[in-house]
Amino acid sequence: MMLEPRIVTLLSDFGLQDVYVGVMKGAIARVDPTIRTIDLTHQIPPQDLAAARFCLLNAYPYFPDRTVHVAVVDPGVGSQRRGVAIATAQCYLVGPDNGIFSGILAQTPATVAVELTNSEYWLVPSASNTFHGRDIFAPVGAAIATGVPLKQLGEAIAPESLAQLPLSPPQITEMGIVGSIQYCDRFGNLISNIPASAIADRTWFFLAGNLAIPSSLTYSDRPLGDIVTLIGSHCWVEIAVNGGSAASVLGLKPQDSIKISFA
Amino acid sequence: MMLEPRIVTLLSDFGLQDVYVGVMKGAIARVDPTIRTIDLTHQIPPQDLAAARFCLLNAYPYFPDRTVHVAVVDPGVGSQRRGVAIATAQCYLVGPDNGIFSGILAQTPATVAVELTNSEYWLVPSASNTFHGRDIFAPVGAAIATGVPLKQLGEAIAPESLAQLPLSPPQITEMGIVGSIQYCDRFGNLISNIPASAIADRTWFFLAGNLAIPSSLTYSDRPLGDIVTLIGSHCWVEIAVNGGSAASVLGLKPQDSIKISFA
Amino acid sequence: MMLEPRIVTLLSDFGLQDVYVGVMKGAIARVDPTIRTIDLTHQIPPQDLAAARFCLLNAYPYFPDRTVHVAVVDPGVGSQRRGVAIATAQCYLVGPDNGIFSGILAQTPATVAVELTNSEYWLVPSASNTFHGRDIFAPVGAAIATGVPLKQLGEAIAPESLAQLPLSPPQITEMGIVGSIQYCDRFGNLISNIPASAIADRTWFFLAGNLAIPSSLTYSDRPLGDIVTLIGSHCWVEIAVNGGSAASVLGLKPQDSIKISFA
Repeated sequence: MMLEPRIVTLLSDFGLQDVYVGVMKGAIARVDPTIRTIDLTHQIPPQDLAAARFCLLNAYPYFPDRTVHVAVVDPGVGSQRRGVAIATAQCYLVGPDNGIFSGILAQTPATVAVELTNSEYWLVPSASNTFHGRDIFAPVGAAIATGVPLKQLGEAIAPESLAQLPLSPPQITEMGIVGSIQYCDRFGNLISNIPASAIADRTWFFLAGNLAIPSSLTYSDRPLGDIVTLIGSHCWVEIAVNGGSAASVLGLKPQDSIKISFA
Repeated sequence: MMLEPRIVTLLSDFGLQDVYVGVMKGAIARVDPTIRTIDLTHQIPPQDLAAARFCLLNAYPYFPDRTVHVAVVDPGVGSQRRGVAIATAQCYLVGPDNGIFSGILAQTPATVAVELTNSEYWLVPSASNTFHGRDIFAPVGAAIATGVPLKQLGEAIAPESLAQLPLSPPQITEMGIVGSIQYCDRFGNLISNIPASAIADRTWFFLAGNLAIPSSLTYSDRPLGDIVTLIGSHCWVEIAVNGGSAASVLGLKPQDSIKISFA
Repeated sequence: MMLEPRIVTLLSDFGLQDVYVGVMKGAIARVDPTIRTIDLTHQIPPQDLAAARFCLLNAYPYFPDRTVHVAVVDPGVGSQRRGVAIATAQCYLVGPDNGIFSGILAQTPATVAVELTNSEYWLVPSASNTFHGRDIFAPVGAAIATGVPLKQLGEAIAPESLAQLPLSPPQITEMGIVGSIQYCDRFGNLISNIPASAIADRTWFFLAGNLAIPSSLTYSDRPLGDIVTLIGSHCWVEIAVNGGSAASVLGLKPQDSIKISFA
C-alpha cells in the first residue's frame, strides 16, 4: 500500500537530444522502480543558473508535499563545488550547491542540509567527474523518495552556508517601478522581477517607448497583435503580445530593464 | 487494488522549454499521485487549433478505454469561451470548448458534456486568467480519472452546442480526388484530408506537376529520394519522400491542395 | 505486489512534434497500464542507425535488470527486414533487425532471439506498413514486460544471424591513437570511438592542429572557453570546451578523425 507520494522531479540543461535524462531515470529506477519521475524541463539554456532558479521557483508550489526535486545545471561539476540535499517544510532539493535552489529557499527555508559525502547512496562509489546527475544526484534523490533520512547521505552543513543567487530587486517609488526581465518563455512572453504584491490594488501601466499600456486581466483583453501587460500565472508582472511574441515585438531579453508607472 | 486504467494524456502548445507541462503534472499528482500521465505532444504550433484537432484525432484510438485526454491549445483563455469536460463511449475529454475535440467527437459522439463551473475541483477556487491548464483542466482531468462523475464538475450542456472545427472535405469524382494537406509531421511527410475509405480498392496516383506517382504500400517501395504516396499509418492518403522530406521536395504545406487520379 | 521491475524504454527518431511517441505509450498501456515507460531519446537524427546504436549502448547499463528496450529507427519499415526480440543476460531488446542493437550485443550477447511473426501479440493482426513501432514493437515490448516468453512471439532465429553495425575501431600504436568522432551531444561535446581502456594509465594529449592538449579529469579543469579532453561519463575519450561547444570551436562532426598522442 502506498502511504504517500513518492515523486522525483528532474530539471536540467541536458536537452532531450541525448540519453542523459533517460539514464538519470534508469538510475532512479534501479533504486526503486515504483518511484514516479516528472520532468520540469531539460531545456534550461546551458549552464544558465538564473533560468534554473526561476523555473524551480515557479514549479515547486504545484507539487505534492515531500516531492523530491533533483536539479542539474552544474557548470562546476567535478570541481570543489558541493553536492547537497536540502529539506524544507514542503519539499526536498538535491543538486549542486550553486544557488539554483535559492529562490525556493527564500520562500520555504532549509530545515536540514547535508553535503553528499556518503558514496554508499551513489550509483557507484567512485562517481564520474562529469555526470553527477546520473552518478550522485539521481540515486540520492531516489533514496530520499524511499525514506532515507538526509543525515545518512552525508555531513550536515549550515543552511546559511548554502550558495545564494539573489534576484536583483525592482526599484519601487510612488511614481512607478523600474524592474527587469528575468525570464522569456517559449511564447516570447517576458516575465519580470516585479511581484504582484508590488502592484497590489493600484492602477498601472507598462511604458513601451512613449506608449503607456494599461494593465489587462488576460491575453485576449487586447486585440490580436497588441502588447498586453498583466499579472501572469507565475504572479509576476508579465509583458505579452496577444497571438505573438513580446520578445520579438519589443526586442527585449532577460536582464533588460522595464518600467511600470502608477496612475 | 487498481481495477482499471487511470491514465491522463496531455496535449498542448506549451513546448518543453518552460515548466508549464511539468507543473500540470504536479497539479495532477496533487489530486492523486498514482495517476499515470502520458504526453501526446506539447509542440502543437502556438494556438493552432487545426493541428490540435488532427493530433487528438489520430492519437485517441490507441489508448485504453476511459482514458482522460486533457488538451490545452487555448487562444481564448480568460475570455468567455467555456471550459468543458466531455464523456464519450470510449474516452473523456477536458479542455477549452474551441473545436479541438470535434474530430474525435465526429467518430465517438459525446454522451455527456458539462461546463466546468464547479471550482471545488480546481487547483484553487480563483483560477488565474492565463493558465487554465494548470488551474482547471489538469486537476479536473485528474478528478475524472479518480472517478468523479462529470455532473459534479459543472452544469450539463447540450453536446450539440460544443464548438465545431470542421475539416474541409475532399472533392471526390469518378476521375479522382481534390483534397488538401491537413498536417505535416517531423519527417516532412504530408498527411492529406483524403481518408483511405475514399480510395477503397481502386488504383490511384498522386499528381505532382505532370508526373503521376503510383501508390505504394510502404516508404521503401520507391528508391531513396523518390516521392512516395501511400495510405499512411493514420489511414489518410499521405505523401512522403523515401529518406527525405516531401514538404521540402514538393514545397507543400498545410492547407495546400493536392490531386489524386484514379486509373 | 510487484515482484520485479516492469520497465519499457523507448528510443526513436520520431521527435516530439507529432503524437507518434504518445501513441506507442498508448499501445503499451492497452497491454498493461501499470508498465512504466521511460524515454531514452526520440531525437535520433532521422534514420541514423549509428547514433541509435551509440545511444542504446550508452544507456542500457544504467537500467534495472530485465528492462525491455524498444528502439525504432527503421528506414526499412515495410520491407523485408525482420522485426526481432532478443534476450540477453541483462535486458530485452525489441525493434528492427538492422544493427542498432549490435553495440549492446557485443557487451552482453544474445541468449535467445526470435523473429516477430506471431501477430497475436501485435496491436492488430494486420500491422500497417509504415508504423511498426505502434503496431508491433510497442505491444510486443509490453508483452515481454508482462512475462510472455520470447518463444511465443515468433520463430527462433540464430543470434549470429542478427544484423551487425560495427564501430570502426581506432588505430592504436605505441606513439598514440587515431580514432574518430562517433557522436556529438547537445552541448557540442565530441565523443570518440577510443575507449578508456585504450588509454589505461598512460599520459596522453589530444592533438588539435599544432597544439597538444593534456588530458583533464573534468570540464572545469581548464579555463572557460578552453578545449578540454578527458574520459567522459560514457567511458570514451571526449573532446569538450569548458562552457562552450567543441563541435563549433574545432569544426568537427561525427565520422571525422582525431589524434591522441602518448607522452
